[in-house]
Amino acid sequence: MIAEIIAVGTEVTIGSITNSNAVYLARRLSELGVEVCYHTAVDDDQNRLTSVFKTAVDRSELIILIGGLGPTEDDLTKETIAKVIDRPLESDYEMEEKIKHIFSYSNREMTVNNLKQATKPQGADFIPNDYGTAPGIFIRHEGKIIVLLPGPPRELKPMFDQYVTELLKGDFHIVIKSVNTIGVGESQLEDTLRKIDLNYQGFTVNTYASLGSVEIKIIGKGMDENYLNKSLEFIIEKLKAELGDYIYGFDNISIEEAVLEKLNEKNYKIAVAESCTGGEIARRITRVAGASQAFCLGVVAYSNNSKVNELYVSEDSLKNYGAVSSEIAYEMAKGILSKGGYDIAVSTTGFAGPTAGEGKKAGLVYICIMDRDRHLTLERVFTGDRNTVQERATNLALSELYKFLNYTLTE
Amino acid sequence: MIAEIIAVGTEVTIGSITNSNAVYLARRLSELGVEVCYHTAVDDDQNRLTSVFKTAVDRSELIILIGGLGPTEDDLTKETIAKVIDRPLESDYEMEEKIKHIFSYSNREMTVNNLKQATKPQGADFIPNDYGTAPGIFIRHEGKIIVLLPGPPRELKPMFDQYVTELLKGDFHIVIKSVNTIGVGESQLEDTLRKIDLNYQGFTVNTYASLGSVEIKIIGKGMDENYLNKSLEFIIEKLKAELGDYIYGFDNISIEEAVLEKLNEKNYKIAVAESCTGGEIARRITRVAGASQAFCLGVVAYSNNSKVNELYVSEDSLKNYGAVSSEIAYEMAKGILSKGGYDIAVSTTGFAGPTAGEGKKAGLVYICIMDRDRHLTLERVFTGDRNTVQERATNLALSELYKFLNYTLTE
Repeated sequence: MIAEIIAVGTEVTIGSITNSNAVYLARRLSELGVEVCYHTAVDDDQNRLTSVFKTAVDRSELIILIGGLGPTEDDLTKETIAKVIDRPLESDYEMEEKIKHIFSYSNREMTVNNLKQATKPQGADFIPNDYGTAPGIFIRHEGKIIVLLPGPPRELKPMFDQYVTELLKGDFHIVIKSVNTIGVGESQLEDTLRKIDLNYQGFTVNTYASLGSVEIKIIGKGMDENYLNKSLEFIIEKLKAELGDYIYGFDNISIEEAVLEKLNEKNYKIAVAESCTGGEIARRITRVAGASQAFCLGVVAYSNNSKVNELYVSEDSLKNYGAVSSEIAYEMAKGILSKGGYDIAVSTTGFAGPTAGEGKKAGLVYICIMDRDRHLTLERVFTGDRNTVQERATNLALSELYKFLNYTLTE
Repeated sequence: MIAEIIAVGTEVTIGSITNSNAVYLARRLSELGVEVCYHTAVDDDQNRLTSVFKTAVDRSELIILIGGLGPTEDDLTKETIAKVIDRPLESDYEMEEKIKHIFSYSNREMTVNNLKQATKPQGADFIPNDYGTAPGIFIRHEGKIIVLLPGPPRELKPMFDQYVTELLKGDFHIVIKSVNTIGVGESQLEDTLRKIDLNYQGFTVNTYASLGSVEIKIIGKGMDENYLNKSLEFIIEKLKAELGDYIYGFDNISIEEAVLEKLNEKNYKIAVAESCTGGEIARRITRVAGASQAFCLGVVAYSNNSKVNELYVSEDSLKNYGAVSSEIAYEMAKGILSKGGYDIAVSTTGFAGPTAGEGKKAGLVYICIMDRDRHLTLERVFTGDRNTVQERATNLALSELYKFLNYTLTE
């Protein structure tokens, strides 16, 4: 079933409000196995709404219209839809009484306009609204389903969840799983995915990149729930076999959450010594509730002096190698570990840009990860502006930290 | 001019991501006097994209397509548009070299797919992308304007602001200026604005509140550039006279940039001692290029031990007042200043949530700002989830720091 979500309102088209309803409905519909192929937003103009709705009826089987059900004159959704499908609006006696009751109950004055909300196109059903005065409308029309919902999210969401899903579900099933990877680029990942056979009937496998990590999203739809679950398992096993350590988690866990889980498993305390990432690693870790169980200390040593005084980096090394060097990254990690009480340390030093020094490149970053037995030092040149370099360096540090922890754990 | 914004991508239609680009572009276009009447989102399906694009060309004069410009196989926007307007894709030698350079600079492996990004429809122009590999495309076609932009907001926004607005402006002139204020609420600010005469022909003055600061946005449109610039000057002079110290900058300078400017003016070195903000203050400051001139040291002391060892907080105070107290905020600031070499310090301690301890409330935060002569301690209870509390505390700390610096400077 192909679906289209239409938001009606100038406040949406001019960008005064974010169309969060569309995101909500699209997710819920996808989970129900409905293929949402179009979102549309159109301003409060009856001609444009008419043509948008006609296009939707031509190309989609389920059309959900949001907004324009209120009592004011620019609320035209119901009137417009009734006209296009040629079903005159009729007033519903029970709904009229209900609306009158709501107003008298709350001692508010009712205008004639409010009774507009008691009308519905011939043959349509009301969808109850427990949180506002405007009911929704459900219409079956020439093999299509047309749903009208009010714009306020606190009314729309429960109306959809309680009433519309029941009307739509039918007898098919859907499974959705995200596999989160880090350390492998999107196109390289797609190359890998092409090499393994992931063609299971009813399944799609797509990749979505964000800074440093790529999500593999698996969606399966069909009538046979057992087949769907089994196939999903096979796909995940194949991905695990092929991608191994690149997978850090499932269903969009963040890399810092994955790191904290590993730290807690090992009962490790971590200390972070940052230069070019400027506190970003500490911040990412401390965004997670309960971070204090494993995270105790971060030092942002942004000058040579603070590297020497706070992290015991040697002045000779600074002179010989420059602050942006694998030697200094190593000494920073070693210095913060030497304070005692920490099991593992991560350090960063680099030129986030836009300028660099020491005859080195902007974007050059060194990362060191160290525990009591081992250390790993990395060199990388990142492109992008200052903040992109800082974020990418943070992502790399966190993902390498994850792999480092994971490796020692499975040894 | 009627405009339509089309987002291309299954991740949008199924609700995996919010289409924040549409909101951003709709606002900017409205400011430019362009009437945005339609938003559309369509999944990664070439037939559906073709029909959506054809409809858009029929009903709109400016069509902005977002996304689908990446190197993978489901990135089809450019190919589809080229086909519909019958302008074959041609590879651009210079752009090929540029893309090759980006990959070799960062030692990443380039696949053949990456070179797709060097092609453009015949007669089209590239829009430079300073933050990613996929350039945008600008096409004039049969009286319509077609713009293709990449999906990541960090790439799209500067591309639109720096290049597309210039291409769209035409022969009328637009002046836009933002006046950034802090320490005054939006409704109080609106009251003040009503009292002064800001009625200049062709001008609008609006306020936009974000966490802790309010932006006054002045937009003037018209044919007479000279009149526009003069009027803008008058308006700004009037605002300066009325708002004085509440103004911390112009054109959306961030509060941390304003803080760094003040620090550099006074030739001050700053040190930051954070607990509940977890590195966010250091990170915000170090996002600014050149931060190292004034920022030297940040300590994220997330445990009692690290507060004692790194910031010389007394164990007695921890016992008597608890870690979340004005006394500990004071001792943290004092401790980091006592390391020597710093002129001013900021400290934070609090319960970011979701839980709290010491019989205190989640959201309770103490902030201390201290220089050699004076100190200011603040208590505040913030609402919202963990990350909101961390961000609000950071915003308050930075804005109070700005006022503290500004006050001593003008004394």
